[in-house]
Amino acid sequence: MSKHPMFLVPCSNAARYEAHPSEVTHRMATISRLEAGDVRFPTSRHLDGSDAMNPDPDYSAAYVVLETDEWLPGGERLTGYGLVFTIGRGNDVQTAAIEALREHVEGLDIDELCADLGGFARRLTGDSQLRWLGPEKGVMHMAIGGVVNAAWDLASRRAGKPLWRFISDMTPEQLVACIDWRYLSDALTREEALKLLEEANEGRERRRGDLEARGYPAYTTSPGWLGYSDEKLASLCRDAVAGGYRTIKLKVGNDVEDDVRRLRIARDAVGPDVRLAVDANQRWDVADAVKWLSALGEFDLAWVEEPTSPDDILGHAAIRAAVSTPVSTGEHTQNRVVFKQLMQAGAVDLIQIDATRVGGVDENLAILLLARKFEIPVFPHAGGVGLCELVQHLAMADYVAISGSMEDRAVEYVDHLHEHFTDPVQISGGRYVAPTAPGMGARMKDRSVVDHTYPGGSVWCADAPTAAGTELEGVLS
Amino acid sequence: MSKHPMFLVPCSNAARYEAHPSEVTHRMATISRLEAGDVRFPTSRHLDGSDAMNPDPDYSAAYVVLETDEWLPGGERLTGYGLVFTIGRGNDVQTAAIEALREHVEGLDIDELCADLGGFARRLTGDSQLRWLGPEKGVMHMAIGGVVNAAWDLASRRAGKPLWRFISDMTPEQLVACIDWRYLSDALTREEALKLLEEANEGRERRRGDLEARGYPAYTTSPGWLGYSDEKLASLCRDAVAGGYRTIKLKVGNDVEDDVRRLRIARDAVGPDVRLAVDANQRWDVADAVKWLSALGEFDLAWVEEPTSPDDILGHAAIRAAVSTPVSTGEHTQNRVVFKQLMQAGAVDLIQIDATRVGGVDENLAILLLARKFEIPVFPHAGGVGLCELVQHLAMADYVAISGSMEDRAVEYVDHLHEHFTDPVQISGGRYVAPTAPGMGARMKDRSVVDHTYPGGSVWCADAPTAAGTELEGVLS
Repeated sequence: MSKHPMFLVPCSNAARYEAHPSEVTHRMATISRLEAGDVRFPTSRHLDGSDAMNPDPDYSAAYVVLETDEWLPGGERLTGYGLVFTIGRGNDVQTAAIEALREHVEGLDIDELCADLGGFARRLTGDSQLRWLGPEKGVMHMAIGGVVNAAWDLASRRAGKPLWRFISDMTPEQLVACIDWRYLSDALTREEALKLLEEANEGRERRRGDLEARGYPAYTTSPGWLGYSDEKLASLCRDAVAGGYRTIKLKVGNDVEDDVRRLRIARDAVGPDVRLAVDANQRWDVADAVKWLSALGEFDLAWVEEPTSPDDILGHAAIRAAVSTPVSTGEHTQNRVVFKQLMQAGAVDLIQIDATRVGGVDENLAILLLARKFEIPVFPHAGGVGLCELVQHLAMADYVAISGSMEDRAVEYVDHLHEHFTDPVQISGGRYVAPTAPGMGARMKDRSVVDHTYPGGSVWCADAPTAAGTELEGVLS
Repeated sequence: MSKHPMFLVPCSNAARYEAHPSEVTHRMATISRLEAGDVRFPTSRHLDGSDAMNPDPDYSAAYVVLETDEWLPGGERLTGYGLVFTIGRGNDVQTAAIEALREHVEGLDIDELCADLGGFARRLTGDSQLRWLGPEKGVMHMAIGGVVNAAWDLASRRAGKPLWRFISDMTPEQLVACIDWRYLSDALTREEALKLLEEANEGRERRRGDLEARGYPAYTTSPGWLGYSDEKLASLCRDAVAGGYRTIKLKVGNDVEDDVRRLRIARDAVGPDVRLAVDANQRWDVADAVKWLSALGEFDLAWVEEPTSPDDILGHAAIRAAVSTPVSTGEHTQNRVVFKQLMQAGAVDLIQIDATRVGGVDENLAILLLARKFEIPVFPHAGGVGLCELVQHLAMADYVAISGSMEDRAVEYVDHLHEHFTDPVQISGGRYVAPTAPGMGARMKDRSVVDHTYPGGSVWCADAPTAAGTELEGVLS
């Protein structure tokens, strides 16, 4: 139920319309409204998602809705959806940061937006006053990422394509135009990137068919949360292998003997051929990481994730130089400048990308191009709420149009909260099935949004009627 | 005018009080209220503060007030003041982030807080859900810094000392207990820091007397904003030299020929003995910086500040290796982990610290200790609104208790907006006079807060009566 009359045209656009008589045959369509919602799931009640640094997360989304005054052929209002993932407290701050971007968005000509998504992202990161709050990091940068992702969702819905297909149908010139090249030229220039993309043009069609036929490899973290019992760990490991997964990741870092015991249980459960990875969630200093990982040497780990501070490029390089376990980070890496240095410093064997940590699709394209240049495989971070739905598109676009590689990498999968999305991920035989629905996948079911809106939704407020989050109903088209 | 009855004791504390009958003779005092205010100054109307990346700042403060139910001997309510500096838009987001910390603060026992300020800061940065919004960077980390600084203000007011004196009267053991040592041990351990501080114990008394007698060196940026005319630049440079300043900093980075012309004007105005520094405010990629700085070679610059992204440790190292100008950064450096790497990588000749960018006094003490270890001189960033008032205390405490050095460094000074503070900085002969008033200096005049509250204050809302920011009046004790 929208508050907007069907034919509303904002005044400023009406004026521009009059100035362009050649366009009389169609009304210029604009983004009429940006709304942000504070949606939280009480996951801490069951210790899902517990790790060494995040013992009690309530998976949450600062939800972004870009409503337009354009209609899709099916009669639905064209709308863009995005979200920023948080783990509970502070989701209200994240929502406020999204609202601070309203003046950059409302009234935008949709044709112009869709023709220059890179320019849109650069205007947001370049706001000369908001920039002080980062620059390009933390709450404000994630807010920009949420709004930018919603714009890509809108553009791909308008094109009738899933985002991975929308991106991989772009020309190399269009792709490099999306990227903010500032601070990258000492590692990767626009010209080099163009050359890499042109090389990847060969075989695009074949890879698209391959992806549609076979899906993209997944790995799972579902068995490995610290809050689970040994029995649950073993049982979930067996389930994962039966489900077709070839890599399983366990959380570590609270107690080294505990970690050795849990890894033995996992190894016994999965057999010799399935890879085991571990995730320390930033728990260690450099020397601790080296000592701890040496104690885990017997397990031939696929990688260790976030061994120390996500800001510590030189620390990761020192750890990598001292241990045989492949080193990885990225889910908290704030922007392309830090990814660039991780690669320049030889600090990582592989990286994670995250759909909602950096400044949106455009910045993730820059990171994927850097990874292509430095030949670093990408294992995208997912889980939480909605992260699988979103990040699968980036991995698939990377396979078709950028790296051309898929079998040496995998997207994380956790079986949480997918039921709240209108286009939930589909997993088959341990692989992500290529989405066919238009957009990026961030759209939630209206009922889920209303029930989980914080603090008024029925999940949070036992006394509230189910439709307590009435204020948000207007957001949903 | 406070909303609090004089003898209010929150329920939870009343319960604890009853459980400790030995304490019957005094009521336990607590922080009764955290308030945050959105205070903005319309500086963009006059192009004060314009540089290559920040053309139109409205200097702003997300203002923090920690009200207690304890009374000072003079009959005033013990209150702690802090602020986070921003440049306009987004100050509301910063304010919301401060409010998200309320539950960590209200009801705190003041004795316990003052006995363990480091533990307080670590509890804030360690909040397992809020941590996701950084970690330790951007809006959420600056909010923590604002609240932590307000706690130090409160503690030093309670002790009746200016903050610089409060810090420099602490023992080495007390100082190292303030620091979050996580992620530092590969560069500086607690034991090394203790040894450095014990070495600095010798001569503390002499340096304190020296500081009180002579003040701390200042340098000025007032003449050098990009928005000023050549005539204004020359005239302000002459004024600065007449005022006793030995270093003047100019903003650069928009146009190289323009920069050469302005530096020549400045050199002519100041004569051969005054140092000139430049600040590029993150304008360049690595190769641009090298080229630009080569073109400025004739000016024998004291330093170049922020030549590239504040996140680019390796970029600063590459620039430093290629140019003769000393390289510096720090006003946007997000936390101790990035400062650590700048020093480990040999990326800087000197650094800035900022009172409100990192997680407060405690993290700045860690950075000052790292600088002491790596023998890097510190030239604190100031200007904006309130930054001079706050950061002078850190520089002075560093001289007395940490580095023992002062004549090889200087605190930035800009003559803006000091009239809004109850204890404005005093400059004499190009030096900061050591403050004598208790606290850290962030307290603003009540009238200034009310008039500049955004958007309701009279400065922003022409139609509003002068006391339009009535909601904020309750904040002011």
